[in-house]
Formats: sequence, C-alpha cells, structure tokens
Amino acid sequence: MPSHPKHAAPDHEIHELIRRRWSPRAFDASRVVARADLLRLFEAARWAPSSMNEQPWRFVVTERTRTPEPFLALHGSLTGRNPEWAGAAPVLAMVAIRKTFEAFEAAKETAWYDAGQAVALLVVQATDMGLFVRQMLGFDRERARGALAIPAPFEPAVAMAIGYSGDPESLPTEKHRASELKPRTRKALDQIVFEGVWGQALGGGVDG
Amino acid sequence: MPSHPKHAAPDHEIHELIRRRWSPRAFDASRVVARADLLRLFEAARWAPSSMNEQPWRFVVTERTRTPEPFLALHGSLTGRNPEWAGAAPVLAMVAIRKTFEAFEAAKETAWYDAGQAVALLVVQATDMGLFVRQMLGFDRERARGALAIPAPFEPAVAMAIGYSGDPESLPTEKHRASELKPRTRKALDQIVFEGVWGQALGGGVDG
Repeated sequence: MPSHPKHAAPDHEIHELIRRRWSPRAFDASRVVARADLLRLFEAARWAPSSMNEQPWRFVVTERTRTPEPFLALHGSLTGRNPEWAGAAPVLAMVAIRKTFEAFEAAKETAWYDAGQAVALLVVQATDMGLFVRQMLGFDRERARGALAIPAPFEPAVAMAIGYSGDPESLPTEKHRASELKPRTRKALDQIVFEGVWGQALGGGVDG
Repeated sequence: MPSHPKHAAPDHEIHELIRRRWSPRAFDASRVVARADLLRLFEAARWAPSSMNEQPWRFVVTERTRTPEPFLALHGSLTGRNPEWAGAAPVLAMVAIRKTFEAFEAAKETAWYDAGQAVALLVVQATDMGLFVRQMLGFDRERARGALAIPAPFEPAVAMAIGYSGDPESLPTEKHRASELKPRTRKALDQIVFEGVWGQALGGGVDG
C-alpha cells in the first residue's frame, strides 16, 4: 500500500481509482493537458446516469495556453482563496446545470445531483490518467456566467481546476501547503450507513 | 470490444468501469449481496469529495432476506412502475441528504451534488464487483422517511436497487423488458462540452 498521505485509508477494500482520488491545490503549471486526454475526461462524464436521461450538465473548458482570455476571465471570477492557487492549473472549467426539465419549465430538483454523478465519473477517469481535479464553489456566479456566455436556463454550478499535481511548496499560502500533506479524513462508516432503520449500524455480520 | 448493448459506445476511450456501468431493472432475485461486499460499496461512497468535507450523505440499507420488514416498507414507498421490478433486487437502499450546514441552519445548495458524487463512486465500485445499481426518484418521500425513521434535517433523496443483474425476461412489464436490450444513448459530446465560450465545440484540435 502506498504511503502517500492523500490516498484514502479505507476500512474495506475499494477500487484503486477511488482510493487514489483526491483534490489537490498544487498543480504543475508547466504541464498542459493533451487535447485527446481532455476529450476523454468529458466523454466519461457524458456516460453518467441521470434522471430521465436528461443529462442536465454542460461544461465550458478554458486553457491557459489555448484560450487565455476566457481562462483569465474565469480565474477572475473565483473568490476567497481560490485565485491564490487555481491559476497554476492548465485547465479551468465550469460545470453548468439546467435546473428545469427540457420539455417544460418546472424546476428539476435533481440537476445538481445528476451533475455530481457526471463530475465524479470525470474525476475517476482523470485519476486513471494521472490527472487531478479540484472542484470549487467559491466563484462569482454572474461574473462566471458573463465570462463564458452561459445562457439561461443553464446556471454556473461548480468550477474545476484540472491538471497534473504539482509541488506543495509551489503554493503561496502556508495553510494550503500544509493541507496538501495532511491525511484525508472522513466520518466513520457506521455514522453514515445504517441497516434497516436510521441509527442501526450496518455491521460486519455473518453471511448465510 | 464486447457487444453487450448496455455498454457505452464512447467516441473517446474511457475507463472500462465507466463504459460497463449501466442501470438495469432486471435483478437476479436468487443472489444476495455478501455483507463484506455491501460494506465495500458504502466505503467507496464514503471517500467521495464534498463541499467543506461535510459529507452530507447517509444511507439506509434494507435487504429482502436479512431485514425483510424495512425492505418491504421501502418497497411499499416506491411509486410509478418502480414496484413492478424493484422487489427482485436483494438490496433496496435510501440515500438521505442533509440540506443544511452542520454548524448552522443555512441552506446548503450542494447537498444533492455531493450525494451524487458519493453515489457515483459507489456505482463504480459496484461495477468493479459485478454488481449493478439502479437509482430511483419515484418514491413517496414521507412514506420512505417513516419506513426508515429518517430524522430531520436529513431528507430522503434517492432510492437505490442493488444486486446482480437478472434475465430481462423476468421483468413483468414489456416496456421494461425492451428497455433492457436497447443501446444506451447520450447527447453528442459537442452538445455538452464547449471551449472558451458557450456554443464553441471542444474540437479534436492539434496539441502543441
């Protein structure tokens, strides 16, 4: 088992790609993502399941080297401490979601959920290719909408930094440098999974 | 390349587990899911990313053989045509989400999104183990809440049927039998992924 602190420490065996997945802030600014590899990431998202197969996800991709103007505009929409590290990623992308049904104007509660599944598959694909993704909610929605010309009824939902991981020491913020090396933590399994009724742990049990 | 109609037909190479994933309605009623395997599914979900690492997902698991009462109660909360097929799955589970922050009562827009990522990783794990998952929105929320004793501020969000796939001919509904054999379809990649600005296809391009 590798000792990288950012590998998950599961109590039950999980797939290598799920164990290795994590969301860095340090990206290698010198490595671009090949176009063919970018296409594979979004192809993985494309095949996610969704309610009524409506696929309410869209992606706008910007690259520092190929499309510097929208890249800088999207970077400029980031808020909080995100701008401090995200500019080193070669790719910044926006996940937009359609919160209404395609056939009528009613609100669709599951657009966020469906998009979460699509992005999770994108991240699994990225992990398999040695790429990393960090998702961000900290951005100005109207600025991002304007920067990327996202039309209603779609809404900017989640920003993503995509690239190869970099040296934690390259991060300008001490708190971020430390975070790159801290073990990942999660609630215990018996806090999140119940058997039959809420509060009853799904124990190891005996099969038969 | 296998010819199973339910494998994805990607335009760009994607990981085998993403390509093979699909959501059947026909489950093999004679095969239970080993307890150790169930635990691995939820362990995979556990390591999903989430906003502020709040992990707003919970799971209540019912099994036809081990916990028949809540299994039947959850099955009884299903609506539409779901009850016609879902009873053959050995496991029915409910995904519940917390739509407020842990530290204060403010609404948390991304609970659905985070839960979508957790379930997507669960499904990847299931696929690796030869298991299948079909997610359902068609259920009565208050009945499901009562059946499984889901407390506020958690809300029942998505039901899941989990098991080994079965013979499509075992399905009582002709429309469902046909659906098991139809190729999976998705919007074209250039309808969902844009470069730099909305509407501009992310083309194959030339790297360099």
